[in-house]
Amino acid sequence: MARPRTPKLSRPGIAAAALDLVDRTGEFTIPALAAALRVSPSSLYNHVCSKADIVELMRGTAMSAVAIPGSEDDGGARAPGKGPSWSDTLREIAIGYLDSYARHPRLIPLLTAYTVRDATTLRVYDAMARALAAGGFDPAARLRAVTILDSFILGSALDAAAPAVVWEADEAASDEFTQALAAGLDEPDRARRTFLEGLDLILDGWAARAETDRSTLGV
Amino acid sequence: MARPRTPKLSRPGIAAAALDLVDRTGEFTIPALAAALRVSPSSLYNHVCSKADIVELMRGTAMSAVAIPGSEDDGGARAPGKGPSWSDTLREIAIGYLDSYARHPRLIPLLTAYTVRDATTLRVYDAMARALAAGGFDPAARLRAVTILDSFILGSALDAAAPAVVWEADEAASDEFTQALAAGLDEPDRARRTFLEGLDLILDGWAARAETDRSTLGV
Repeated sequence: MARPRTPKLSRPGIAAAALDLVDRTGEFTIPALAAALRVSPSSLYNHVCSKADIVELMRGTAMSAVAIPGSEDDGGARAPGKGPSWSDTLREIAIGYLDSYARHPRLIPLLTAYTVRDATTLRVYDAMARALAAGGFDPAARLRAVTILDSFILGSALDAAAPAVVWEADEAASDEFTQALAAGLDEPDRARRTFLEGLDLILDGWAARAETDRSTLGV
Repeated sequence: MARPRTPKLSRPGIAAAALDLVDRTGEFTIPALAAALRVSPSSLYNHVCSKADIVELMRGTAMSAVAIPGSEDDGGARAPGKGPSWSDTLREIAIGYLDSYARHPRLIPLLTAYTVRDATTLRVYDAMARALAAGGFDPAARLRAVTILDSFILGSALDAAAPAVVWEADEAASDEFTQALAAGLDEPDRARRTFLEGLDLILDGWAARAETDRSTLGV
């Protein structure tokens, strides 16, 4: 008989197992997670302190692939002083963020239900806040702008995970709706194209407003 | 001893019980739903045909509170021919839609995982498609615009259900980020104000584009 397995627990391993449970079932519990890892709940508590702590671990895992333009993890591809514009910085972060969450749609409502405390994730929001400050947003407007981007990205990640036929029109549908479905649903890369169009709409709106502010102030 | 309860099953009753399960646990199964309703799974199948069918029932329940401006369920408050602009129609629908889903954040990823077939919900998207057609959007652009609004509304509904402290900055946070948190998180009605600002940003961007198209075409 083989020796009983004595699995080595680690925080990344716990995050991966929890993420797998959430991807499959939409939720996780400490007992289910312990069973999946073949350990007792009390061994789990040697590595994590609460369900909220595990949510933060999953958030960090999902967010770790988001590169922040101009930072060291961006590979230092740009010459010093030649960084991207504030608006391009936001665009690059938003795209990385969408790609991360589109892989874990069922994680999204769990993440939004808990305060963000994971350091990796906070760095991404921090970079967004700095880009918005560079674009002239005062502190309160900056937080609203971070939230607007956040909401649009999370909703778009859910759309990216939607079935190919998002809507199925019935006999009461108008021509305006059925024509839109016929023209739009089959477009290659539908969800991503739509996300990029919405992102540009938001960023262009902010850029136009920043331009107006600048000319009003005569600078 | 009291007579054993013989509960009367109905589709609205099934939808309400499923919604309650999803609100509490993030998911529902046919056996759990049957247990909550104190019936056997096979009695449940006399009223619904599948899990997808129950998702559509929940969608319809959540969506039934969304009024469509200018339609009969809007109370006929407006004089004929004096309907709201296409942009105001979209704004009113979006606000009703946000309010409905902010009450059921955990339902959101279930809804986006299934094709929309519920008639009540299709009427809402149909009204959005008609408003966008009136605003000059061609069929493919119309579907992208519906999707952009949809994603922003669903993400904002998740934000509306978030804890009061959405982000908790750590010692590595920049001034730009900590000032934004200090100025913005405590704002009364934070989530709703932010949603309305983002909604106007999107709608104003579209209105400006429609205006440019009009002047380019010389109409």
